Amino acid sequence: MATLAQELTFEQKLDQLARVAIEVGLGLKAGQELVMTASLEAVPLARRITEHAYRAGASLVTTLYSDDEATLMRFRHAPDEAFDHAPAWLYDGMGAAFRSGAARLAITGANPLLLSNEDPGKVSRANQSVSKAYRPALELITRHQINWTIVASATPSWAAAMFPDDPPDVALAKLWDAIFATTRIDVDDPVSNWKANDAELHKRATYMNEKRFSALQYRGPGTDFRLGLADDHLWLGGGTTAGNGLYCIPNMPTEEIFTTPHKDRAEGAVTATKPLSYQGTMIEGIRVRFERGRIVEAHATRGEEVLQKLIATDDGAGRLGEVALVPHSSPIASSGLIFFNTLFDENAASHIALGQAYTSCLRDGDTLTKEQLAAKGANDSLIHVDWMIGSDKLDIDGITASGAAEPLMRAGEWV
Amino acid sequence: MATLAQELTFEQKLDQLARVAIEVGLGLKAGQELVMTASLEAVPLARRITEHAYRAGASLVTTLYSDDEATLMRFRHAPDEAFDHAPAWLYDGMGAAFRSGAARLAITGANPLLLSNEDPGKVSRANQSVSKAYRPALELITRHQINWTIVASATPSWAAAMFPDDPPDVALAKLWDAIFATTRIDVDDPVSNWKANDAELHKRATYMNEKRFSALQYRGPGTDFRLGLADDHLWLGGGTTAGNGLYCIPNMPTEEIFTTPHKDRAEGAVTATKPLSYQGTMIEGIRVRFERGRIVEAHATRGEEVLQKLIATDDGAGRLGEVALVPHSSPIASSGLIFFNTLFDENAASHIALGQAYTSCLRDGDTLTKEQLAAKGANDSLIHVDWMIGSDKLDIDGITASGAAEPLMRAGEWV
Repeated sequence: MATLAQELTFEQKLDQLARVAIEVGLGLKAGQELVMTASLEAVPLARRITEHAYRAGASLVTTLYSDDEATLMRFRHAPDEAFDHAPAWLYDGMGAAFRSGAARLAITGANPLLLSNEDPGKVSRANQSVSKAYRPALELITRHQINWTIVASATPSWAAAMFPDDPPDVALAKLWDAIFATTRIDVDDPVSNWKANDAELHKRATYMNEKRFSALQYRGPGTDFRLGLADDHLWLGGGTTAGNGLYCIPNMPTEEIFTTPHKDRAEGAVTATKPLSYQGTMIEGIRVRFERGRIVEAHATRGEEVLQKLIATDDGAGRLGEVALVPHSSPIASSGLIFFNTLFDENAASHIALGQAYTSCLRDGDTLTKEQLAAKGANDSLIHVDWMIGSDKLDIDGITASGAAEPLMRAGEWV
Repeated sequence: MATLAQELTFEQKLDQLARVAIEVGLGLKAGQELVMTASLEAVPLARRITEHAYRAGASLVTTLYSDDEATLMRFRHAPDEAFDHAPAWLYDGMGAAFRSGAARLAITGANPLLLSNEDPGKVSRANQSVSKAYRPALELITRHQINWTIVASATPSWAAAMFPDDPPDVALAKLWDAIFATTRIDVDDPVSNWKANDAELHKRATYMNEKRFSALQYRGPGTDFRLGLADDHLWLGGGTTAGNGLYCIPNMPTEEIFTTPHKDRAEGAVTATKPLSYQGTMIEGIRVRFERGRIVEAHATRGEEVLQKLIATDDGAGRLGEVALVPHSSPIASSGLIFFNTLFDENAASHIALGQAYTSCLRDGDTLTKEQLAAKGANDSLIHVDWMIGSDKLDIDGITASGAAEPLMRAGEWV
């Protein structure tokens, strides 16, 4: 569809990524303030985004830089009590910025292995402290009160984790190429390309919402699986109009349409098509069997014990909270890469998620009580862990209320 | 006095600067949070300071990085209205951090020429917006409610402004050497060295406060000048105990003892010994004559018009608001350099300042009304501009209430 623009230089691609992030992803409005977060390793992209924000009429761009080395120094030298402490003053400030009209852009690119050798207890306490301090501001984002987006910058440490056998400069170049390709900006007109991609996701979601299938039927190698959908489920995908009236696409890339399955209506066998990276452990070769919505058998060729513990977290951890459809030809899937980064790996293939359901994927879901949500089939759990089941060998049918099957995907592609 | 440690590597000197900043300048207390500001060009020093802060028991170090390139993008691309806007949410957040116990460290190192080609109207509006937004948080600092300090990092742009004829790497190395020398950390035991320097400043201030001179008499090339001191004046210098009970030295380097002169009691001729850099203009060869406290004649070999306009700003702009004594052998003076940075240039030589007086340099000054301050001789003005009159040819006497002269400095040095 889009013309590949292979003659673009690195600087031109970086600039196109920044332009698309501001104009399409964030939908920045003239006069709006922008609060950006980035790693020190992402300065080149942050600067390109800053320029495009000002060109689009931003009144002020404030970038809050984080530094992996400073984080490590804290884990290695700070007193134990420090790990229950977070900069509430900064998160409260960000919340104040959002309430006064600021947009929010996050550049992701973390080293997935940064804290792998640190005390897991401290890591967990630090994460919990940040979650608690950030919650009031984050709620403005998760409830889409403001326009926001996430884009990725390649960083040396992330590249080293993905391409450990390559020299640093080669690894970094490979990761940039992968980001440019999967974020769909290495084409002549990336803005139009993105708008077309967004329209396609909305078209798919609208089709599914009109069809109101009661279940999906999956068939592939090691997979013969029927998954009921929640009552009043809503398929979502692509951009959304935020509470401040501005249209944004919160994830770049985004390839999925997704909804809430019924927690009591999963039957049969599913085999994962990619490894699952969970809290530093790689779980490979996952095969599970569901009965009445719950996993009754779970195996893995590697990391089975972690998988079993994960499923045993709570009552909802062995049931499904999300189902997402991604064609195998999508740029992330066809890259064949594992990014160790949610923004990419969640958009790599059709997937299901153990654990907590999204209330936004139910009609008026944000207004329902916990009991009402459960009655419609929405799952409840402390965890939400996606795992990939899509491949070029997977067929998916939609099953109507009357039990008729309609082909949706064949060999991993929309029919 | 201190042993020069010329065998130290650059990394060791950088580490000593960071250590002195945390242990002596800031006096960080274990468990305290630290809010640091720095340019992206100052990352190496910021990281060394971060490590020393955590080693000293900091619970969390948050560094707010600024980026000259992003600032320039704003001036070049943002809409005109943008320049009346500042991130109040961020300054309010800093204020909240200070009130909840955080310490404050600023790394200075700005490019003195950064905005020299930008619209002065926009520069002024942006500065005013920041001043207004920052005021509530800044007052906690200027009133010494919390422990705080300022240290310098060499940056390529600052080095280029100071050493325009040198290649970038040579200029940067020269600036680092100048910072290490003037900040007194290129010695074997910089912590003891700093404590000795601080004790020396306190000893000088105490001596002057005990003497209670009514005036100072200056004699040197082109200078024959008597300056009355304000009633109830207080000499200050070196470190101070902040409102939170922690002892800090707010400026590193600091070489001056200073007090408030009497606005109506300056008589005679003064010749500046260094150029004055004022809002992008270099004013050279300043010679002025005072009568009854006010400048009645002002000349300069270069920039005389700007000097005349400066003096005409308001009624107090032609009178003096500060007098400071710095021996010519102090490291900054003997470097012979002009830093284009207040932290250094204000500590380079004995100086006087046109304009606003510091109320902290009067007994109970913070509790006095404007009228009471004026009655004691404290000057009032919108401006406060320091200019250097010290040299190795300057003699200064203290004049007692009875009119007797006591030698204070001869050929620029304390007697």
